[in-house]
Amino acid sequence: MRAEIIAIGTELLLGFTPNSDATTLGRVLAGLGIDCHRHVTVGDNPVRSKEAIRSALSRADLVITCGGLGPTVDDVTLEAIASASGKRLLLNRNVLRQIKARFARLKIRMPKANLRQALIPKGAIVLPNSVGTAPGLLLKLKRGLTPQLLVALPGPPAELIPMVERYLTPRLRRYAGKTVIRSRTLKTAGLTESEVDAKVRDILALRGKVTIGIYAHPGQVDLRITSKATGAAAADRLIRRMERRIRQRLKDLIYGADDESLESAVGKLLKGKRLTLAVAESCTGGLIQHRITEASGSSEYFRGGVVAYANALKEHPLKVPVKTIGRYGAVSPQTARAMAEGVRRMAGSDLGLSATGIAGPTGGSKLKPVGLVYVALSAPRQTQVERFLFSGDRATVKFKASQAALNLVRLFLLP
Amino acid sequence: MRAEIIAIGTELLLGFTPNSDATTLGRVLAGLGIDCHRHVTVGDNPVRSKEAIRSALSRADLVITCGGLGPTVDDVTLEAIASASGKRLLLNRNVLRQIKARFARLKIRMPKANLRQALIPKGAIVLPNSVGTAPGLLLKLKRGLTPQLLVALPGPPAELIPMVERYLTPRLRRYAGKTVIRSRTLKTAGLTESEVDAKVRDILALRGKVTIGIYAHPGQVDLRITSKATGAAAADRLIRRMERRIRQRLKDLIYGADDESLESAVGKLLKGKRLTLAVAESCTGGLIQHRITEASGSSEYFRGGVVAYANALKEHPLKVPVKTIGRYGAVSPQTARAMAEGVRRMAGSDLGLSATGIAGPTGGSKLKPVGLVYVALSAPRQTQVERFLFSGDRATVKFKASQAALNLVRLFLLP
Repeated sequence: MRAEIIAIGTELLLGFTPNSDATTLGRVLAGLGIDCHRHVTVGDNPVRSKEAIRSALSRADLVITCGGLGPTVDDVTLEAIASASGKRLLLNRNVLRQIKARFARLKIRMPKANLRQALIPKGAIVLPNSVGTAPGLLLKLKRGLTPQLLVALPGPPAELIPMVERYLTPRLRRYAGKTVIRSRTLKTAGLTESEVDAKVRDILALRGKVTIGIYAHPGQVDLRITSKATGAAAADRLIRRMERRIRQRLKDLIYGADDESLESAVGKLLKGKRLTLAVAESCTGGLIQHRITEASGSSEYFRGGVVAYANALKEHPLKVPVKTIGRYGAVSPQTARAMAEGVRRMAGSDLGLSATGIAGPTGGSKLKPVGLVYVALSAPRQTQVERFLFSGDRATVKFKASQAALNLVRLFLLP
Repeated sequence: MRAEIIAIGTELLLGFTPNSDATTLGRVLAGLGIDCHRHVTVGDNPVRSKEAIRSALSRADLVITCGGLGPTVDDVTLEAIASASGKRLLLNRNVLRQIKARFARLKIRMPKANLRQALIPKGAIVLPNSVGTAPGLLLKLKRGLTPQLLVALPGPPAELIPMVERYLTPRLRRYAGKTVIRSRTLKTAGLTESEVDAKVRDILALRGKVTIGIYAHPGQVDLRITSKATGAAAADRLIRRMERRIRQRLKDLIYGADDESLESAVGKLLKGKRLTLAVAESCTGGLIQHRITEASGSSEYFRGGVVAYANALKEHPLKVPVKTIGRYGAVSPQTARAMAEGVRRMAGSDLGLSATGIAGPTGGSKLKPVGLVYVALSAPRQTQVERFLFSGDRATVKFKASQAALNLVRLFLLP
């Protein structure tokens, strides 16, 4: 089955809104083994919307439109679909009742404009909208002798995503292809792209049913394995085999896969060892602690900490000796060490983590340039300090420093 | 001048990568007053790439492709352009020299594959790539008697954006339309979408040269003014007039425009009044301080603070009385107040800000449900406490709480 996606919305053409619906649907179709050949975006224009739908119907077995189902005159999709498919628009009383009920719940009188949303092409199956007023549609057509599907979805991702998950995907599964595309992302921290590349260059060059892509982000390099096979089980098997091969090379450098974050990987390790952590941060300004507390249940292992932006807060409550800052400066291995030890003592935690550096763009000097960061980890028997020199703007330096700090904890906790 | 944008890349069709190039170019063309009628995405497929380019050339005066200029066999754009435009590919010695020089700087021998990137359609103007190896191209063609431009850009945004800014935009300015589209976004905090809507509903309904859109984000509602006029000056004038009208209605509810963040608005106010701030956060886990320190120069007004995740850290160093937590609980107006006053004292700052609540998804109770957050601001003469009940997942509650806390400071500092 060959698919095309048509996004309808002038705001997309103008670049006001990214076309995230196409990205979402692209992933869903790939997961179902449905080949998607083309994404098209047109504005809220009746002529070009109709032409785009008609042209897609001449090539594809499945055409999905997103957007343009709202109540205003700018919303042209229903008319375009009716006209391109040769189906009349009929008032659907069920849909109208649901729209009215929605307004009643919000204690608002239904504006007349919303009546248009209940005009449904004849024969269409209605896909309920659990979030907004515009229902989705599925029309069964024919292209010559082969069956053809035309689907219309609302534009807002908050409405489209649940509709796709609950109502569209189950219906499309019947048409799903035998060739399934699967992917899995392995994430590394602590290495540059060329360092990761050097370790897996031969694997990256492989062509065939399994391919590997390398993707660099600040403080992180991902390897994405993509497999194409007949059936999900075979595709998954190819992924697993390749994952084992890559893990043999990269071992502990891989901190997680797919949606797992570095902070959740650290959280799992702390929880597993029943250890607690406290954090003292300067240049990262709260980011390390913000990331740690993004994980639900982090209160089990994270006690809290200090953002010691002004030097006075390094002295109290962190108890960094005045003379340490005076002699070596706030950005120094000595101060990083004292911060990590100080916050560990203050919070009564097993581990104390710290970061101090120069996030920029100002505040650098020849000896201590922008991007210089010291990260320290204090444990009952030892404190280790590492030095980094990060490139990038202020936000990037902050993020890379938080990544280095979290990775220091992770490497320390590994068996 | 009518434009179409063609993105070439299988990863876009599969939803692995969002099509941010189309968004970038959409904005650039709108800013130049060039009407963009269509975005198309096809995979790394020679037949469909060529067909997409040929079809766009039959309709548009300006066709821009992005992606597919890399050195591998998957990169099909140069051949597709040559074939769709009827131009031969010739080895460009200047381009080859630049690619070789790039590899020499990296101390790598140029792989043979990269030779392909120096094959340029006859007559094309080369757009230099300051970041990667693939140069961009601009071909002057004719559609009947009218001149037509075909532009090819590399796919990675880090390469495309500087090339567009430095080399493409200046060349396109000659072809810029008289009708210019301009936009400006006014940002509000502290109100829901329907509250903002109620204040400007009549303005939102306007149709014509200036239109207003309303966009809700967590803890924030934006109003985007878009104007269309002959010439940039006229378009800007329409925006300014409408902005004045909206500001008369919403006044202090608007905290900034376009790229300004709530944290930078707060920073400006603190700097202007030469006041310093310290923060004690519990449920927001560092996010408030992270946001404040995203602004360069924040060390002038931000002293730091405490993330008091465990109750022990509320007692020390924040000095929240044990009995306050015992009697009212960690999530209470009394604890929020004591945290704000405590951090102000601890840091010796002019203002102390605090947030305590239940970010979820666990930890809620009937009396204190998930999403309950108290925010307090302590100033020399008074401490104010506000109560919020936020909806959403953990990350959303954290963000909304940080938004409410920052907005409390902003409203306090307003003249």
